[in-house]
Amino acid sequence: MQSLFKTIVLVGRFNTPTLGGPLRQLAATLQELGVRVLIESEVAAEHGITEIPVVERIAIGKLADLVVVLGGDGTMLGVARLVAPYRIPLIGVNQGRLGFMTDIPLSDMERTISGMLAGAFVPEERILLETTVRREDKELVSALAFNDVVFSRGSTGAMIEFEIFIDRQFVYSQRSDGLIVSTPTGSTAYALASGGPILHPSLPAITLVPICPQSLSNRPIVINDTSEVEFRLTRNSDARVYFDNQSDCELHEADRVIIRRHRNTLRILHPVGYNYYDMLRDKLHWGQKLN
Amino acid sequence: MQSLFKTIVLVGRFNTPTLGGPLRQLAATLQELGVRVLIESEVAAEHGITEIPVVERIAIGKLADLVVVLGGDGTMLGVARLVAPYRIPLIGVNQGRLGFMTDIPLSDMERTISGMLAGAFVPEERILLETTVRREDKELVSALAFNDVVFSRGSTGAMIEFEIFIDRQFVYSQRSDGLIVSTPTGSTAYALASGGPILHPSLPAITLVPICPQSLSNRPIVINDTSEVEFRLTRNSDARVYFDNQSDCELHEADRVIIRRHRNTLRILHPVGYNYYDMLRDKLHWGQKLN
Amino acid sequence: MQSLFKTIVLVGRFNTPTLGGPLRQLAATLQELGVRVLIESEVAAEHGITEIPVVERIAIGKLADLVVVLGGDGTMLGVARLVAPYRIPLIGVNQGRLGFMTDIPLSDMERTISGMLAGAFVPEERILLETTVRREDKELVSALAFNDVVFSRGSTGAMIEFEIFIDRQFVYSQRSDGLIVSTPTGSTAYALASGGPILHPSLPAITLVPICPQSLSNRPIVINDTSEVEFRLTRNSDARVYFDNQSDCELHEADRVIIRRHRNTLRILHPVGYNYYDMLRDKLHWGQKLN
Amino acid sequence: MQSLFKTIVLVGRFNTPTLGGPLRQLAATLQELGVRVLIESEVAAEHGITEIPVVERIAIGKLADLVVVLGGDGTMLGVARLVAPYRIPLIGVNQGRLGFMTDIPLSDMERTISGMLAGAFVPEERILLETTVRREDKELVSALAFNDVVFSRGSTGAMIEFEIFIDRQFVYSQRSDGLIVSTPTGSTAYALASGGPILHPSLPAITLVPICPQSLSNRPIVINDTSEVEFRLTRNSDARVYFDNQSDCELHEADRVIIRRHRNTLRILHPVGYNYYDMLRDKLHWGQKLN
Repeated sequence: MQSLFKTIVLVGRFNTPTLGGPLRQLAATLQELGVRVLIESEVAAEHGITEIPVVERIAIGKLADLVVVLGGDGTMLGVARLVAPYRIPLIGVNQGRLGFMTDIPLSDMERTISGMLAGAFVPEERILLETTVRREDKELVSALAFNDVVFSRGSTGAMIEFEIFIDRQFVYSQRSDGLIVSTPTGSTAYALASGGPILHPSLPAITLVPICPQSLSNRPIVINDTSEVEFRLTRNSDARVYFDNQSDCELHEADRVIIRRHRNTLRILHPVGYNYYDMLRDKLHWGQKLN
Repeated sequence: MQSLFKTIVLVGRFNTPTLGGPLRQLAATLQELGVRVLIESEVAAEHGITEIPVVERIAIGKLADLVVVLGGDGTMLGVARLVAPYRIPLIGVNQGRLGFMTDIPLSDMERTISGMLAGAFVPEERILLETTVRREDKELVSALAFNDVVFSRGSTGAMIEFEIFIDRQFVYSQRSDGLIVSTPTGSTAYALASGGPILHPSLPAITLVPICPQSLSNRPIVINDTSEVEFRLTRNSDARVYFDNQSDCELHEADRVIIRRHRNTLRILHPVGYNYYDMLRDKLHWGQKLN
Repeated sequence: MQSLFKTIVLVGRFNTPTLGGPLRQLAATLQELGVRVLIESEVAAEHGITEIPVVERIAIGKLADLVVVLGGDGTMLGVARLVAPYRIPLIGVNQGRLGFMTDIPLSDMERTISGMLAGAFVPEERILLETTVRREDKELVSALAFNDVVFSRGSTGAMIEFEIFIDRQFVYSQRSDGLIVSTPTGSTAYALASGGPILHPSLPAITLVPICPQSLSNRPIVINDTSEVEFRLTRNSDARVYFDNQSDCELHEADRVIIRRHRNTLRILHPVGYNYYDMLRDKLHWGQKLN
Repeated sequence: MQSLFKTIVLVGRFNTPTLGGPLRQLAATLQELGVRVLIESEVAAEHGITEIPVVERIAIGKLADLVVVLGGDGTMLGVARLVAPYRIPLIGVNQGRLGFMTDIPLSDMERTISGMLAGAFVPEERILLETTVRREDKELVSALAFNDVVFSRGSTGAMIEFEIFIDRQFVYSQRSDGLIVSTPTGSTAYALASGGPILHPSLPAITLVPICPQSLSNRPIVINDTSEVEFRLTRNSDARVYFDNQSDCELHEADRVIIRRHRNTLRILHPVGYNYYDMLRDKLHWGQKLN
């Protein structure tokens, strides 16, 4: 068997002592298959792994043909934002608890991934959001998000007031705790807790989910992923915008935030037999009934 | 000016005495533009209109190049199901209250429609659902829906139990009052009242919205409109399926109901300047704040 | 030890073959404690129990000092409506799955109930609703409900339109699938599936929960249990009213339905250490997190 | 006519230039009725009112027999917290837009209040919440709330984790944006935007409404107002507690916050004919239908 991917980078969840063994084992298995294996440098340091060549986080995109992530959906999220510009596929391995994106169990990792390297996988393309924050004529911040871009009140406790435009058409002004602009991937995260719908990963869509809106008739909207969403803070209040809850930016009155689909999609590889609904049913306990 | 549409059929809401005058006026205006005007026979009879040639409801699809509907969204819905197989565009005129689809006010009807016949319109394509009910090997019923296909308990008051499959993958079993399978058009109707999201008309999507599900984690899902939805009644209870709430069919245990996007879309023509969000904001009172 | 209750009636869930043994064992245990044990006649017949004196369903209220129910919450509900006028306490035993009201496991039944007969119990008083349906000057129906009184559309699929008055003050007119008027006991049943709040059993309250209301600002209201609720069907549609989903009555246009708290409460006895919130957490899976 | 209230203090909304005239007029009308009129000192300064004796905000409780508030619900809220310990009744006058508590229109103020001073009023008692924040053995903060006590995440964007106990019984651990503990008065404010039920003001109840809880089965609970609610922050995160959104306190891991009904109720006087449901229907636009 010949691997379809020549260079594979291993990434692991931080501060997880139990991952040292699995990372070493997986590297050995992959090397036996003739693959060049690199490991993300911080994780290598954490586990004292010196026998595998390391790669800096920032260089993964340039070197890898495939990234294998050991951890949970949070780890996957960080890597997704990192490699998105390079169109490198990801495989997610969970440490025991099924993740929305990390669907391969650790116990079965070596057998499953070996098969996948030979082509036994189901690819899935997922969109990312590209956000630009503009203050007057300046572009303050530009960031990628794989789950969501969240506008939220700060610590003053006061609701924020803003206007939303879609494709330059005015949609509504809103007074609320905030607004979630989510990809299908993010639709099962914070957006779901805030009353948003679940979007199938293959749907070319973005959803706007208000957080505790004062107007009771305000509801989640789902729009085409080719649409441009613009947020304008209309009143000087304590507001921020968060990208995948991993980075954020303070907003001032009259700031404009433009959100568009990123030009690249992220490719996640699943084992043959993967079924999105099985995973959803498991995560949301849909088998369970009230009595 | 030359009309882009040679034969136009006028349809009106039933039992609406005030429509006689407007129908006659609109017919005269269109005839002056050199258009051949026909009027739906029942409406002609209701208003004693004898000077315009009539057409049976069932024949509209074969004769019309364009249908103008005077009434509300309900009237539009009935016509949509009728002409969908023929790919004939529709224009909707409301009698005073803005409709989600009937967006031209009666007062401005003649001027607006004249302009539209000359090409000043924005076309919008909307999907329909095609449903087949199967009992054992037989195909019991086949029906179109423009808003929604609704599975619902009958008058016994007991919840129904069913299984859902999407593209032949098992999604969930559910115990609830029912399930709404809705187009983007229907997303602002019953599906919204049941907690579903608003889908922009251009989104190639279908949403599944549970009605009072017993499992509290059950939420609306939005899927691609290329997907096939299958409903299986798992327990013999008093269940029915409704198409746009205009026709329906009783279901038995083990009946299977298959829902797919209809091959044709329905084309609605809007005046230049039409903005979906303006209409949404108006209908849902989004301008209003709690205090 | 002397039992505080001289005559105990045993009731069991119908069509449940596994209950024969437990019913016989419990009867024997109670007889050893010097209690006079009777068994509901239909259950006795189902299991061929001839060694214990039987009592007709209708006579339970007159003969029992205490009723022990083996089954689920549904069985408990039926018995509650039956004995409510007599102020006889109930003990609920579940067959394996914890119920909201049947909180004693079958496996521990004999030991727990023996202790309870000696006084080791926590009593809990729960309200019932008394409903009268009036057509013109006549009183059509009068019924008790322990969970809820549900107004609902029938099988035509059309929403119903009605007005609500509380203490003769007009509250709202509503267009919806229906309305649930629920006791605290019923607040964890159908009312919860329809978006209602959970009411602690000790709260002297009634909640009105709309079912898929067309107006998006319509929300559940919680009122004092001394208030009188009046429902008026304003349009002739296919509407019914259901009592605990065990009996029902068809409604006509202009019918008035008056709901008040029943003069008696129902007393449920729990073992010492009973905690409503433990039960709630278990039933609603509150321990579970999304990821 | 003799006023039932000897000393009346007038309070007005800040930064509202149009209130100068109405305050002067109302004072004159009340003085003609033989009432001793005082005006809150900051408002007097704002409008340059020197002809009426002033009273410091802090001294209102000791001097007034009745407080008349000109402004909105927010102004009323601040006064309510101030006078609650003194059991002084309040009358609320709105400046044009009906408030949940300020139900007398400015245009009709003089006539209506004159009648109320003679006894033509409907009194309504409303509860307040008394909160104590405890860190280790110390009592950090003690505060009153008329609407709600809100636990909320700060500006880091991360959910908070906490445990809730009611009457010292464990209820649940929760991961969410926060929790609202609301009086019936507050049930139509932030709690409603977060999905909570409307509690009639006369209901002796408190409601706990989760804000975007991660567990989808977590729902609002309504409990007796004699119950004690305890909140424990279980993980060191950026959390705060807010009292009527007018004051707040930062929380640390293991802090305990105890909430109880305040011993006094607040008495609001309404004109004869007052109907809570009329006001609710007006504020929530319940007359409006979707189409």
